[in-house]
Amino acid sequence: MSSAYSALLERLREVHSLEKASELLEWDQQVCMPRGGGAARMDQYGALKGAAHERFAGDEVGRLIDAAAREVPAEGDSNEIALVRWARREWGRKRKLPADLVAELARQTSLAQEVWVEARTRKDFSVFLPSLEKMVALKRRQAEALGPRADLYDAWLEEFEPGFPTTETARVLGDMKTGLVPLVKAVAAKAGSVSDAPLRGRFDLAKQRALSEEIARAMGFDFERGRLDVAAHPFSMSCSPDDVRLTTRYAEDQVLGSFFGTMHETGHGLYEQNVGDSLKGTPLCGGATMAMHESQSRLWENIVGRSLGFWKHWLPRFQEHFPQAAGIGLSDFVRAVNRAQSSCIRVEADELTYSLHILLRFELERDLLAGRVQAADLPRSWNTRMEESLGIVPPDDAQGVLQDVHWAAGLFGYFPTYALGNAISVQLWESALSASPGIPGDIEQGRMAPLLGWLRENVHRHGKKLTAPELVLRATGRPIEAEPYLRYLRAKYSELYKL
Amino acid sequence: MSSAYSALLERLREVHSLEKASELLEWDQQVCMPRGGGAARMDQYGALKGAAHERFAGDEVGRLIDAAAREVPAEGDSNEIALVRWARREWGRKRKLPADLVAELARQTSLAQEVWVEARTRKDFSVFLPSLEKMVALKRRQAEALGPRADLYDAWLEEFEPGFPTTETARVLGDMKTGLVPLVKAVAAKAGSVSDAPLRGRFDLAKQRALSEEIARAMGFDFERGRLDVAAHPFSMSCSPDDVRLTTRYAEDQVLGSFFGTMHETGHGLYEQNVGDSLKGTPLCGGATMAMHESQSRLWENIVGRSLGFWKHWLPRFQEHFPQAAGIGLSDFVRAVNRAQSSCIRVEADELTYSLHILLRFELERDLLAGRVQAADLPRSWNTRMEESLGIVPPDDAQGVLQDVHWAAGLFGYFPTYALGNAISVQLWESALSASPGIPGDIEQGRMAPLLGWLRENVHRHGKKLTAPELVLRATGRPIEAEPYLRYLRAKYSELYKL
Repeated sequence: MSSAYSALLERLREVHSLEKASELLEWDQQVCMPRGGGAARMDQYGALKGAAHERFAGDEVGRLIDAAAREVPAEGDSNEIALVRWARREWGRKRKLPADLVAELARQTSLAQEVWVEARTRKDFSVFLPSLEKMVALKRRQAEALGPRADLYDAWLEEFEPGFPTTETARVLGDMKTGLVPLVKAVAAKAGSVSDAPLRGRFDLAKQRALSEEIARAMGFDFERGRLDVAAHPFSMSCSPDDVRLTTRYAEDQVLGSFFGTMHETGHGLYEQNVGDSLKGTPLCGGATMAMHESQSRLWENIVGRSLGFWKHWLPRFQEHFPQAAGIGLSDFVRAVNRAQSSCIRVEADELTYSLHILLRFELERDLLAGRVQAADLPRSWNTRMEESLGIVPPDDAQGVLQDVHWAAGLFGYFPTYALGNAISVQLWESALSASPGIPGDIEQGRMAPLLGWLRENVHRHGKKLTAPELVLRATGRPIEAEPYLRYLRAKYSELYKL
Repeated sequence: MSSAYSALLERLREVHSLEKASELLEWDQQVCMPRGGGAARMDQYGALKGAAHERFAGDEVGRLIDAAAREVPAEGDSNEIALVRWARREWGRKRKLPADLVAELARQTSLAQEVWVEARTRKDFSVFLPSLEKMVALKRRQAEALGPRADLYDAWLEEFEPGFPTTETARVLGDMKTGLVPLVKAVAAKAGSVSDAPLRGRFDLAKQRALSEEIARAMGFDFERGRLDVAAHPFSMSCSPDDVRLTTRYAEDQVLGSFFGTMHETGHGLYEQNVGDSLKGTPLCGGATMAMHESQSRLWENIVGRSLGFWKHWLPRFQEHFPQAAGIGLSDFVRAVNRAQSSCIRVEADELTYSLHILLRFELERDLLAGRVQAADLPRSWNTRMEESLGIVPPDDAQGVLQDVHWAAGLFGYFPTYALGNAISVQLWESALSASPGIPGDIEQGRMAPLLGWLRENVHRHGKKLTAPELVLRATGRPIEAEPYLRYLRAKYSELYKL
């Protein structure tokens, strides 16, 4: 390999190592760090991110990118082309942001989260409003600094979902809303016909833990190259494909919370563990985008994990761990795990209503950025839209506009990726079944390797070489679209609720 | 505070944060990392150490040190003076080492350890010899590069024990040998009079763990600012005084191994947790030197933990955890935990014979560096000296010259600090008792806070502001010396073995 490209690759590997080290610091903070360690950890994290920035954002890397670009072909599928493209995009973003804005955003991100915690605790939006207004102003400055775009919101979105602009996102999410609102209403009209009573009660924590490890292993998660721990707010991360860290949480009265939570995080973890060997150690080593990552967690958690076929094999295992569930029939159990009901809190929402929570946030973010809604109006707009789409109004702002940390953390443009992930999950599932019609039968018998094999081949191994629409087009022959997802939900909930 | 000093402090804090982050990566590797994670971790660790080096070793820091030195007084006890002195010494060391030598040492350190593992497994020194010869040559180059000194060995020693040169170390260790050899012989002559039979058997692991946590807490370790985990090779480290990580290991047939191992590591941990607040986040935040650190672990493990008074309180607790020990009397128990016998392996040696293992290594290192012994002669020299000092000959090199990783890891000059720590531990203990004669009575009743208080005031709070001889002189009014340690051992073992 030529010299400028080699030098660029070496530098990018070094920066990637520093970024991964900083992620380990975050993992440790969530999983291991004693309470007193926070102040020093903030310094360590800051120093590490600063060092990574310094090694990446300088003029020298810009020159290396230009020189490397002259050495590799302009078009093609090679790692080299993808890496130079990745470097140019990321370096360009970093260079466009003035240092004072970056520093001010970092400061405000830290401050606003503290204020948000207080506002949520006091259920008082007015406490948070000044911080939110400042954050929106800074994020608008950031979007403007990143340069002219068809839609200013593109600048926010592309941080998490490069390659899929606002117009496309609005198309998919708009179709989703059109299909979902009447379906949610139809299910709500028959709310009484499905009960989760079979799953109430107390479930031993050690057994929940054993079952979680069992399902992760059965899905194909390699515990020689990863681990599963407890965290208050479950997440997953990877130090490398050979060191992937999942977390979950256990509560005696929420046995499904840990089970599906583990399936969800394992979906993310499998993606990371199965990135292609040739990408290891480079910035292309990891899930392509947030939506692609979420498509994997949702596919395993919802499409597989909440299906009748899956529980044909797993209900007996569940009942071995929890003898109190011995009397539950398969059909009642599956209806119970799929019970749908509009609720206020996104992270507790069921599969059917979840995306409507996302749509509301996406619309509000776009309106905020465009100036159609002011920060001060958010509680009213939030509640109005909740009533329109989900038919309920939060009893207070803690259960409404104050429920998510994202805006306090400056994470505008992040929410829509959750809903895109839902759409993609069904597109991939349908294509996997077209290619390997035996997959549902395998799952009924506890064999999940064939599904994992298809995902590895069509999604995982590519890492960040392709964007979400590119991956979906190659895997399914279609653009990202809402219709398969809606079709899947209509069929599933018509059956469950006898619509 | 003035401007050059502030700039220097800011830079040193950043470098310190990067160094502490790299230590967390090591902790994670020993305690959490799944087996597959090693390759990526090596890259991450290397990138982090490289970033720390880059931020510290440049010309700019040299100019900051010179400018800051003009702003602070030349003499005095202030943090500012100590920090500039520390920076000048460390920066000077880094600058004197050519980059190619540093890289070659890093490479050889990694390679030689792999070879050493193989040689030890095969019990074949000849496998290790070429690597060891290369390492000695590189370490000699390193010592020479660091500049002329009274004794070339000073260059090795000062990496771990700045402020205490070879002549002084040789004086203390020489006195120690003179006193220890006849004492060990006298004890060996009465070997049969003390038995460890009361402590044989199997001890529940969960209860060992509970007791370890109990003793660490009782010693004053703050679990809100630290934790205790399991590691194959126990160690301790700190991310900050508010985040100190201890490790120990549990084996059913070695109940004292975990108990005293925990006391030992907690001794290190208390030192780290009690560094003065004003030093937090700076490179002065941590134990002064290796010998000072070891003085703390040995003081708690041996002087406190293996004393009759300590077990007056703790034997009943021990027997509550382990009912099978109910019949053991206090005197038999204390004799059992202090049983002394010459053995081949340093890390398993008892309190009496331990320092003789160190002396042998110190003498061999000096002879190697001076060319009086060649690497090829080491097995023979090792065994001859073992027989002279401890009266035994290792059955093979795995239990002799190949037992320690230190030389494979380039850690020449490290061993003597263990013996110096032993000497200092008794000097500090005697001074603590002079100042607070109630300490032994407190310990008999389970109160260890008064001892901790004295150590905090006289040792811990100073961090790295003072060297070992400075700390010992202030705390005890004496230079570092062997006589108190020998007096303590003579009295203790005369009593135990009725000499």
